[in-house]
Amino acid sequence: MGKIKPRTLSGFMELSPPNQVCFDAMMLKLRDSFSLYGFTPLDTPLMESAEILLAKGGGETEKQIYTLRKGETDLAVRYELTASLAKYVALYYNNLSFPFRRYEIGKVYRGERAQRGRFREFYQADIDIIGDGSLDITNEAEIPSVIYKCLTSLGLKRFIIRINNRKVLSGLFEILGISESSAEIMRGVDKLDKIGKDKLTETLIDALGLSQTQADELLSFITNQSEPFGALDLYKGRNEEFDKGAEELSALRKFLVDYGVPETHFKVDLSIARGLDYYTGTVYETYLLDYPEVGSICSGGRYDNLVEYFIDRKMPGVGLSIGLTRLYYILKEQGLFSEELLTAPADVMIIPMTNDFSHAIKLATTMRESGLRVQIYTEDKKFKNKVSYADKLAIPYVIFLGEDEINQGLIKVKDMATGEQTIASYGILTAGICDKIKELRKGAIIKDI
Amino acid sequence: MGKIKPRTLSGFMELSPPNQVCFDAMMLKLRDSFSLYGFTPLDTPLMESAEILLAKGGGETEKQIYTLRKGETDLAVRYELTASLAKYVALYYNNLSFPFRRYEIGKVYRGERAQRGRFREFYQADIDIIGDGSLDITNEAEIPSVIYKCLTSLGLKRFIIRINNRKVLSGLFEILGISESSAEIMRGVDKLDKIGKDKLTETLIDALGLSQTQADELLSFITNQSEPFGALDLYKGRNEEFDKGAEELSALRKFLVDYGVPETHFKVDLSIARGLDYYTGTVYETYLLDYPEVGSICSGGRYDNLVEYFIDRKMPGVGLSIGLTRLYYILKEQGLFSEELLTAPADVMIIPMTNDFSHAIKLATTMRESGLRVQIYTEDKKFKNKVSYADKLAIPYVIFLGEDEINQGLIKVKDMATGEQTIASYGILTAGICDKIKELRKGAIIKDI
Repeated sequence: MGKIKPRTLSGFMELSPPNQVCFDAMMLKLRDSFSLYGFTPLDTPLMESAEILLAKGGGETEKQIYTLRKGETDLAVRYELTASLAKYVALYYNNLSFPFRRYEIGKVYRGERAQRGRFREFYQADIDIIGDGSLDITNEAEIPSVIYKCLTSLGLKRFIIRINNRKVLSGLFEILGISESSAEIMRGVDKLDKIGKDKLTETLIDALGLSQTQADELLSFITNQSEPFGALDLYKGRNEEFDKGAEELSALRKFLVDYGVPETHFKVDLSIARGLDYYTGTVYETYLLDYPEVGSICSGGRYDNLVEYFIDRKMPGVGLSIGLTRLYYILKEQGLFSEELLTAPADVMIIPMTNDFSHAIKLATTMRESGLRVQIYTEDKKFKNKVSYADKLAIPYVIFLGEDEINQGLIKVKDMATGEQTIASYGILTAGICDKIKELRKGAIIKDI
Repeated sequence: MGKIKPRTLSGFMELSPPNQVCFDAMMLKLRDSFSLYGFTPLDTPLMESAEILLAKGGGETEKQIYTLRKGETDLAVRYELTASLAKYVALYYNNLSFPFRRYEIGKVYRGERAQRGRFREFYQADIDIIGDGSLDITNEAEIPSVIYKCLTSLGLKRFIIRINNRKVLSGLFEILGISESSAEIMRGVDKLDKIGKDKLTETLIDALGLSQTQADELLSFITNQSEPFGALDLYKGRNEEFDKGAEELSALRKFLVDYGVPETHFKVDLSIARGLDYYTGTVYETYLLDYPEVGSICSGGRYDNLVEYFIDRKMPGVGLSIGLTRLYYILKEQGLFSEELLTAPADVMIIPMTNDFSHAIKLATTMRESGLRVQIYTEDKKFKNKVSYADKLAIPYVIFLGEDEINQGLIKVKDMATGEQTIASYGILTAGICDKIKELRKGAIIKDI
């Protein structure tokens, strides 16, 4: 019979068992972190009617959407989670309580050419807080504290959350008399990190029609890294929107400390603009200090109206998205995952040394009752192969259950890390293993850097 | 601006926040149960090349597969998890250790007409044990013990796992001289529960050409519910395959008890055949005693060669699949979910009674450090609305943080279930809430029936 070559599509991440355990552990940490802040989980469909996914217009992304062949012609696969959230809030408006805090960790799809580190299927982890009519500024300060909690819970230490406010930039554009090209300038500013000052100045002048003075003043403002609040003071009192933005940034700075984010881990950076047009207030980006070249690993901001394409009701929100697959990929590539994490499929493997497997099975059953993950090796292989199986899977304990041990009511166990063998009664042994496994399960996900 | 009507596609389950918490709790229980038996998690792509998904031929299901428009013409969405497993094992054969035990809980897609209780997007929870060349019979006995653990961990008590062996049926067909139509008869037997004895007899005679005697003998064998081992004894020694099957059933019965499955929860039922051709040995179905009409809620069996379409290597396996979305739907429809389960998005809500929110934020930050899920209500609403928000979300504790409490270093908390208000110091209060929340988190998923 002709065989089909087994393959996984490019741009679709598929992990080995230990790596999957690691990825799952990351996901669990995020869920736990989100939960601490009162976010409730949602799990919306991966497929929606295309008109819903494309309601707000996806720009470049729209070209990457997968549509489906079968029955309806309108079906498409989501390429981000926000459209599904907007639909959810609009559809179930009457059953929800606002502010509505939800998180969703799910796969999204982009039909783009796969490249190194770019994915066609990837996880996003999103949180959003949606208000009905209004939403207090404290919510905007809480989001970076969730970022801080998420990243530190993974074991990351050296990162910084950069914060700005779109109102400050829009207000400044008005002050400088360049607000006509506001959206284009915003996108230009967003690229500063990538293209540098000179190239940005050139673009502002040549492509967007700013004068040298306007461009210089804008550049001088957004690149003031040492004294952003000084830069803000210089323009205060000249534009209402600018002043509102500056005031929000001050409030944010104060609340962030109350929310437990150390001053070492956030900074106001007036050059943060975010590409998407729909942000209207606070915006965030997050950088790993030792890997600035990978760009922002989680970003978000405040927007004015989540549901405008669906219902006639003002629902402002603030949200944040972590590109989880990409974050995993970066951490993996940098070798940052800790070997401490228990990735074995079982805590204990029992090797029966008798022909009758009943004793081994009963022992496994009892040990599972005490919460241990137990596998019995019952295949007909050489003894050496059995032990090497446990070794390859990194199972920490192997029990050899022979006639002698059964008769004496004892158990012989080998600690695979130290090679040490112990013989003890069932109770003492299980308690000992349980304690040690509890320690192993505390193993860090990320190396201590 | 024209609005788009928000809607969710029919056949796509989308849950309210408390129901989603409930669904997630079910999923977590299954993950924990699978883990106790040494199964490792996998998360394979939802999209594969169509040739891989359709390698073994999907029959009716094949017609329901979603294919994608975008670039490659060969892309399709998985309609079950087994094809992806087969590809995974074939592709990574050299890196895996066998027996390979994996579980995968993931969404699958069927482009069929949506009906009540039928879904186009639904979760399957699969476990499989794959051997390299051979696989010991103990694995076949272990699978029902995983079913037992899974269902009891959800809180289900009244269910039965029905077990048979395909070799017994195939052997009997040979003994009766009807093995030419073996596959069709197997599918007929599989329908016994649905169509009844008379209709099956009629089908066997009219459509499949059995004589009245052959049909009667087959029916009498498969419907022997009280003494299946007696029925097996009657035919022993006449056909090798039959004898092998009978022997395996005996071994299974013995081991099942060792694996901790009470005799009340499984039975050998010679009429269980399973529709799919690829099962070759033990087969399982599982029924809720009080809701037999919903059919089997989790099924599986032994197969001889997982990877035959991909590589030239014999890899037998045994597996089981739980239709999780369907199981959820049934339990929900029967009103079986317990109100005890803590589905609130937060354990505690803080209502600041002062203009400065800093104290409330600092309190929330400290309480989160002790593992409590805390939300602060900072919106500008009437006091009544704030309390009713907590009430609607079923948040168990509300803290009112006023000037007096702040000055005295005390906290006032209301137990929303009892209405009782307490004033105490931070340490005492938090410890008390933590204890009570720990109790609430133990709440059962399913009602005690």
